[in-house]
Amino acid sequence: MSVPAITDAKYVLEEKMDEGIPDFPNGPLDIYRKKASFSWKDMIRFLDGDEIIAFKQHVFRTLESDPLFARQPGEDIPVEQKRELTFRRCKQLFKYDFVTRDDIMQNPWKMTILNDCLGMYDWSLGAKYFLNKGMFGATVANTGSQRHLKFVQDIEQMMEFVINSPDFEAAKFWVGNLGKTATHSVVFAQLYTPDGQCHGLHSFVVQVRDPKTLLAMPGVMVGDMGKKLGQNGLDNGTSSCVFPSCLFPNRTPSQDPNKRFGASLGALSGGRVSITRMALVNLKLAMTVAVRFSATRRQFGPKEDEEIPVLEYQLQQWRLIPFLAAVYALEHFTRSFSMNFVEFQIGLLMKDKSDRQAELGREIHAMSCASKPLGSWTAQRGIQECREACGGHGYLAMNRLGDMRDDNDPNCTYEGDNNVLLQQTSNYLLSWLQHKQEGRGRIESPLETVNFLEDMSSILQSKFTVGSVEECMNSAVPLAAYKWLVCFLLGESQRKLFHEKSSGLGDFEARNNSQVYYCRSLAIAYIEHTVLQRFHDLIKDEQTPAALRSVLGRLCALYGLWTLTNHMAILYQGGYFSGRQPVDFIQTAILALCGQLKDDAVALVDVIAPPDFILNSPIGKADGELYKNLWSTVMLGKNVLERPSWWAEFCSDKPAVGSLRAKL
Amino acid sequence: MSVPAITDAKYVLEEKMDEGIPDFPNGPLDIYRKKASFSWKDMIRFLDGDEIIAFKQHVFRTLESDPLFARQPGEDIPVEQKRELTFRRCKQLFKYDFVTRDDIMQNPWKMTILNDCLGMYDWSLGAKYFLNKGMFGATVANTGSQRHLKFVQDIEQMMEFVINSPDFEAAKFWVGNLGKTATHSVVFAQLYTPDGQCHGLHSFVVQVRDPKTLLAMPGVMVGDMGKKLGQNGLDNGTSSCVFPSCLFPNRTPSQDPNKRFGASLGALSGGRVSITRMALVNLKLAMTVAVRFSATRRQFGPKEDEEIPVLEYQLQQWRLIPFLAAVYALEHFTRSFSMNFVEFQIGLLMKDKSDRQAELGREIHAMSCASKPLGSWTAQRGIQECREACGGHGYLAMNRLGDMRDDNDPNCTYEGDNNVLLQQTSNYLLSWLQHKQEGRGRIESPLETVNFLEDMSSILQSKFTVGSVEECMNSAVPLAAYKWLVCFLLGESQRKLFHEKSSGLGDFEARNNSQVYYCRSLAIAYIEHTVLQRFHDLIKDEQTPAALRSVLGRLCALYGLWTLTNHMAILYQGGYFSGRQPVDFIQTAILALCGQLKDDAVALVDVIAPPDFILNSPIGKADGELYKNLWSTVMLGKNVLERPSWWAEFCSDKPAVGSLRAKL
Repeated sequence: MSVPAITDAKYVLEEKMDEGIPDFPNGPLDIYRKKASFSWKDMIRFLDGDEIIAFKQHVFRTLESDPLFARQPGEDIPVEQKRELTFRRCKQLFKYDFVTRDDIMQNPWKMTILNDCLGMYDWSLGAKYFLNKGMFGATVANTGSQRHLKFVQDIEQMMEFVINSPDFEAAKFWVGNLGKTATHSVVFAQLYTPDGQCHGLHSFVVQVRDPKTLLAMPGVMVGDMGKKLGQNGLDNGTSSCVFPSCLFPNRTPSQDPNKRFGASLGALSGGRVSITRMALVNLKLAMTVAVRFSATRRQFGPKEDEEIPVLEYQLQQWRLIPFLAAVYALEHFTRSFSMNFVEFQIGLLMKDKSDRQAELGREIHAMSCASKPLGSWTAQRGIQECREACGGHGYLAMNRLGDMRDDNDPNCTYEGDNNVLLQQTSNYLLSWLQHKQEGRGRIESPLETVNFLEDMSSILQSKFTVGSVEECMNSAVPLAAYKWLVCFLLGESQRKLFHEKSSGLGDFEARNNSQVYYCRSLAIAYIEHTVLQRFHDLIKDEQTPAALRSVLGRLCALYGLWTLTNHMAILYQGGYFSGRQPVDFIQTAILALCGQLKDDAVALVDVIAPPDFILNSPIGKADGELYKNLWSTVMLGKNVLERPSWWAEFCSDKPAVGSLRAKL
Repeated sequence: MSVPAITDAKYVLEEKMDEGIPDFPNGPLDIYRKKASFSWKDMIRFLDGDEIIAFKQHVFRTLESDPLFARQPGEDIPVEQKRELTFRRCKQLFKYDFVTRDDIMQNPWKMTILNDCLGMYDWSLGAKYFLNKGMFGATVANTGSQRHLKFVQDIEQMMEFVINSPDFEAAKFWVGNLGKTATHSVVFAQLYTPDGQCHGLHSFVVQVRDPKTLLAMPGVMVGDMGKKLGQNGLDNGTSSCVFPSCLFPNRTPSQDPNKRFGASLGALSGGRVSITRMALVNLKLAMTVAVRFSATRRQFGPKEDEEIPVLEYQLQQWRLIPFLAAVYALEHFTRSFSMNFVEFQIGLLMKDKSDRQAELGREIHAMSCASKPLGSWTAQRGIQECREACGGHGYLAMNRLGDMRDDNDPNCTYEGDNNVLLQQTSNYLLSWLQHKQEGRGRIESPLETVNFLEDMSSILQSKFTVGSVEECMNSAVPLAAYKWLVCFLLGESQRKLFHEKSSGLGDFEARNNSQVYYCRSLAIAYIEHTVLQRFHDLIKDEQTPAALRSVLGRLCALYGLWTLTNHMAILYQGGYFSGRQPVDFIQTAILALCGQLKDDAVALVDVIAPPDFILNSPIGKADGELYKNLWSTVMLGKNVLERPSWWAEFCSDKPAVGSLRAKL
């Protein structure tokens, strides 16, 4: 496969950039595009800005014009070949070097956008690339001492340690890139010194394969874990040191273990901040497919002779449009949260030892431990809904919803199981409540996500007092409800913990028995409130273009009301709701907002959709020629109309005529 | 691949049957097995009975001893090869002929059990076999006239019709078995007579391929749709008649179109009754894997030096055990419902023209249109929860949770999209309400699923009056709540429909705007009530062994309370709940029941688990040797420890040393 010179690709980019954002081809989606209440190009400019728009187009076009990145919807590629293809493409990405060090310094958001773009193409590739480029390097940078920044050159200067995995239960699983290719890995292990003392967790750089032969180093067993549900272009490995092996530590053991743990909390948040975004990218892909499909797929209608697009059905709107609102809510959240994380990283680099920096680390840790669950679960459920909403066509591999679901799935698990992570967030909130109760000062955090808890007692006095459905269609309504909800669940969780402890349980059991319905719900409500608050503030922001405020306001209200419906029983239980009206108003408002947004839905996915080549889904193509695209892709498949290779066996020995007769 | 003679397999069966139900190997699961409050073998005997136990063992052992059915966990087989393997295995099943016509007449449940067994092995195989043996034949039997029962022999006697698909939008998609092998298919088409009159939908038998060559017949375009998310052993086809083609109708057009439609409602219910069961089978597989994993996977603990099984965590119990309760609730429901359907089928065969037979058809249609959504969604969510509850190991293809999810997924879509089907159920319930309001008699149906609606007005006066958590841990509590819920939603749905119509909407729009939060919720509540009622009645039944009643009672109460939590806001909205206590009691009761059932969980999955060979999941094996099984399966994988074939390219041209340095 030949590779065009990089300079050519860049030239093409510059030539095309003058054109700005290209129009979509005319077709069946025109009806909805014309009905949109806002300009989709204005929305892209507002969300991305010109520099990012150009950058995305550059990345997308570069991939599209490189034959190494060519693919066919729904093609059936063996795992081994996927790994090889991904390796080659990854190597090519190192050549393209889309984001230089200077680029990152000037606009760190570009790194996230590059990950978005690569993930939209194929998460295996994005993962393989960033595990190499980002994670390995970042871990060394964040936890290594100065000399380790150049460790590969300096191996011979270092002391030797022995790493020992006593049995196969101690083997490490799931290490990305380790299955086939990694030559060095960062290993976290307990450090024992010759006096028998344990100095806790340390990170070591371990050479696992000979870079000249790719054979395992002596004493190291390293292998491929085999096929996964998704992301099969990435080789995940398992490794154990059956015999002692030579290793290199990254730190002198003299440092305070607590401080070391605190420092790595920050570095570990980076993964979760990224994953929240990655999940959102999957949801964007799925929504693009499902909304375009729903706008062009016609079924039944009020008249015998005219079928209407399924998007016109209230049920279909209710299934899909709230997830579209979630996309916009999470778009703003992940962007602003990433900027918060960059601020924290800069503080780390600047060796900021201030209280604010420490508090920022704690807050980002708490937020990321809940935003990853929120993002990954929202995407999981949203993609599944899109799959079902596209009916049988959603079940065809070529339309890619299966890959999206499979590739998103590990977001629920890696960098901490979602359910387990949520405990970190509730612990953070409970510690603030205790802080206040013990008179240690106001509740106030650098990103202000907990500040409203300062008014906890007056918030808990508030009630739902909305007088009409119209009044309810405003994000201020769910926002106020969420403030009450977080305060209520915080109080309840503390009460429950206290109750469990006072009934004689130890700390460990008491905490375990306070998760379901208490701490877990608290953490989810807190992050939903944070996402909603930020989206609400964006709408109120004077810099938000007036022409976009109306549609964004609807999305914000819908997102808030829709997520709130999961908590309505608690709102009644605690007395915030009473009587019939709250549920009546909220349900009617959700359906009314869906109805108002359905004519904007196609334009809203046009804003988030990658080019057709990247989306790689016939039913999600921008021209909306659903059946033509589907049919032509089916016909492009391998041996579609041919007899199977085993036809003669079938014909010579098939069930006898008459044997199929009904048995009942 | 050689095939042992069938007689040998039968001999092996008889030899082993004397042993009864084999014990499980000793291992880490012993701890939980010894803690169980009931005998798992007694439970199997109660649920299945000796004949079915022996039959299952016969089928499972036959497959296990036939090398054609050998497989490797997580193996990566190309779609084309999957189709070929499935075809060969299907052919073998015709030879084994596990269920003869006499068997079915004597015990129709065996057909379902055979489908369970094949599905537990591989749904593609089960589907391919039953589409051939069951569905094609059954459709001809149910909708064909006498002469079509022998149509294949009698083609030349029939009149010729012309089938025409005007364009590719009229092409039929998703026909099972049509992709590669089908020679004849049943086609539903509008029948136009030469005078231009349309006689509505009729079914025709169409020859699509030449059985001697497997080439398409002239005028017929028939092809394979390509890769799907799951069930890739089954070839789903697309077909259109680009040119007119010769076909054979199954009925004279003289019959009353309404009666014809009514008759086929019954035949169509069979698919949904089956799918409800198929979804349950998937959930059984997933629960087996997740519970055995959770009982052997240890993480953290109250003491530094001792880790406890994750099943000991309340959170893990709450994630999994309610789905285990759902398995037992749906096991009893699908079994009794299948018997109802058999009764209906016998009525059809006997040409029963009674009102009861007609009412039975309507009721089964309404039930199946909601039981399929309930079953397939419960399985979908349950399998996903199992996947996540097994962490990274759940994401390894070899552990099969991905295949279970992918194979279950179409259950939400075929034989009617879940959301669309639910309308049929609510229409049925609304028609009963109208029946009563118009003074046309009592609300009374053959299977008594609607009889309680006769007391609607007094039920709507009832309230939640439970005084303690203990009192709440009884299935009578959620059962009473469900009766109120169905009545409330029925009244609300009728009111909503009336409101929409009186505001000027036509029937079509009014119905569409009454689905979300009204008719849809009504249908779901109705079927959950029916499932719960039947399970509740089983516990009260004197024939249910006393020794099993306690564990079954807990499962029943848990299932009812857990599903009820989805409706708590409505229970408050309509005034059935008020104050704090209902939610407090129900949540506490759910967690208490989970805690009581956690020591029974392993035994409860032992009851539903197939043999290891069929389950095909290393982390779900009966010996509970989690890590050994996992490790040995990883090591059995292809090229696990070998360098990739492209290693030399990797080594010669990998990123330069130092280029991985952190960029931030």
